Amino acid sequence: MNRFESFKMDDETIDDLQLDGLMLIQKKSSFRFGVDAVLLSDFAKIKKGDKVLDIGTGTGIIPILLAAKTKADHITGLEIQGQMADMAGRSVKMNQLEHRVSIVHGDIKEWSSLFGKASFDVVVSNPPYIQEKAGMHNSNNAKSISRHEVKCTLDDVVAAAALLLSTNGRLAMIHRPHRLIDICEAFRANGIEPKLMRFVLSNQKAAPTMVLIQGTKHGRKELKVLENLVIFNEDGKYSEEINKIYGRSPKEGVLT
Amino acid sequence: MNRFESFKMDDETIDDLQLDGLMLIQKKSSFRFGVDAVLLSDFAKIKKGDKVLDIGTGTGIIPILLAAKTKADHITGLEIQGQMADMAGRSVKMNQLEHRVSIVHGDIKEWSSLFGKASFDVVVSNPPYIQEKAGMHNSNNAKSISRHEVKCTLDDVVAAAALLLSTNGRLAMIHRPHRLIDICEAFRANGIEPKLMRFVLSNQKAAPTMVLIQGTKHGRKELKVLENLVIFNEDGKYSEEINKIYGRSPKEGVLT
Repeated sequence: MNRFESFKMDDETIDDLQLDGLMLIQKKSSFRFGVDAVLLSDFAKIKKGDKVLDIGTGTGIIPILLAAKTKADHITGLEIQGQMADMAGRSVKMNQLEHRVSIVHGDIKEWSSLFGKASFDVVVSNPPYIQEKAGMHNSNNAKSISRHEVKCTLDDVVAAAALLLSTNGRLAMIHRPHRLIDICEAFRANGIEPKLMRFVLSNQKAAPTMVLIQGTKHGRKELKVLENLVIFNEDGKYSEEINKIYGRSPKEGVLT
Repeated sequence: MNRFESFKMDDETIDDLQLDGLMLIQKKSSFRFGVDAVLLSDFAKIKKGDKVLDIGTGTGIIPILLAAKTKADHITGLEIQGQMADMAGRSVKMNQLEHRVSIVHGDIKEWSSLFGKASFDVVVSNPPYIQEKAGMHNSNNAKSISRHEVKCTLDDVVAAAALLLSTNGRLAMIHRPHRLIDICEAFRANGIEPKLMRFVLSNQKAAPTMVLIQGTKHGRKELKVLENLVIFNEDGKYSEEINKIYGRSPKEGVLT
C-alpha cells in the first residue's frame, strides 16, 4: 500500500496526473475527467495573485491543475454533489494543496450565501453540456448530474459568475458548439462580453467538437476568434500543441 | 469593340466571370467584388423556386452568380447607391438575365415601401463590415458606403430580413469574426435563429478572416458549426474546395 492509499475509498482509483507528482482520486463507475477539463485549464487566462472559482468542479481536476500551472493566489472548486465534493477535498489534501485550493460543497444558485459579491478575478466552468429536456437519463445518477443540466444550467453558471466576478473579471468556459448561440446570449445578457473564442477539432478537416470561450465583465464589444486547437495530426498522433498542453498535465488515457 | 461594349461607361471595366459566359461591369476605381461574395453565393442554401433578395448588391455579383448556380425562381438585388444600381442593372441586361434578376435602387430601411412583407424565401447579404464609429473615412465615397456602416448597419439588414422573410425563410450572411457576437445577437433579437456557421481561413493554421452564417426564421435553437473553409493549401495553392467553388465562378484576380 503506497502513501496515498489511505485517502481513497473502495470504489475509487488514484490516478497519476504526471504533473509535479500530482495525483487525483476518481470513482471507478462515475464521471471521470476528460480532455475538456485539461483544455479549459490551459485556455483560461489566469494572472499572478488571481482568486479563481471553478463552478461544478467534480473531481477537483481543474483547481488541482490550475494550482500547478498558474500563479493564482487561491482556487475554489464548487461542487453540488456531496460525495464528489468529499472526494475532490481528499484529492486536495492528498496533494497537500490545502493552502491554495478549497473545495466547497454547495449549489451555485445559492452563490450569495457561499461567496461574497465580486470576490473572484476569474470564474471557470466545464458545465453539464446536455440540456435537461434533450434526452432520457436517470436524473439521480452522479454521471447524469455532471453531464446533463439537472442541477445547473448554462444560465445559472453565467448569471452567478457575473455577480461573483470583480470589475474586468473573466469567465472562461468550455462547451459544445451547438450551444454557442445560447452561450453568447447568456454572456451578454449578464454583462460579460465574449472576447476570445477557440474551437477544438479532433483533426484539421473535422467540424469542431468543443468550443472554448472567455468573456470579460463589462468588456468592450470585440471578439477575437483564435486559430483552431487541433487534437490529432493527419498521422493520428497527438498534435504538437496537445503534446505541449499535456506535457504539463496527464499524458495518457484521457483523450477518450 | 465587342458586343458588350455598349453596356459600359468610360470609368468601367467588363470582367469575364468564367461561368456560363457571364460578364460583370465594375467601376475601375470603386468597390470591386471579392471572394466574400463568391463564398456567400456558394454557402447560401437556395432551393428550386425560391425568391431571393440580396441586400446591398453592389455590382450585382451575387444575384448574377445565383442566377447561374441555383434554380431560384427570382433574385432581387437591392442597392442604395444610384450609380451602382444602374451599373448592376446594365450587367443584368448584358447577361440577358432580366427574366430572373431585378435590381432595385433603394434603402433597406424603407423595405416596406419597396417589397411586400414575407415576400422572400431567402435573404442574403454581404453587408458593410466596418462599424461607422471605427475609423476615419470619407462617408460620401462609394467605396466607403460599401465597406463602412454609413448607410446600412448590421441591425438594419437583419431587422428588415426578418420582416421580408416568409415562415422558415433563411438569412445567409458573410461577415468578420470580430462581429460574431453582434451578429448572433441581432439574429436572435429579430427571431432568426442561427443554424449554420462556417469560418473561412486563409490556411489551416490561421485564425479565421471571415465567417459565414445562416439562420432560419423562428428556427429551433441548435447551431451546427461546419468544418472550416480553407482558401490556400500549405503549398500556397488554392484548396480543392476553393477550386471547386471557383470552377463554377471566376477563377482569377478576385482572391485579393
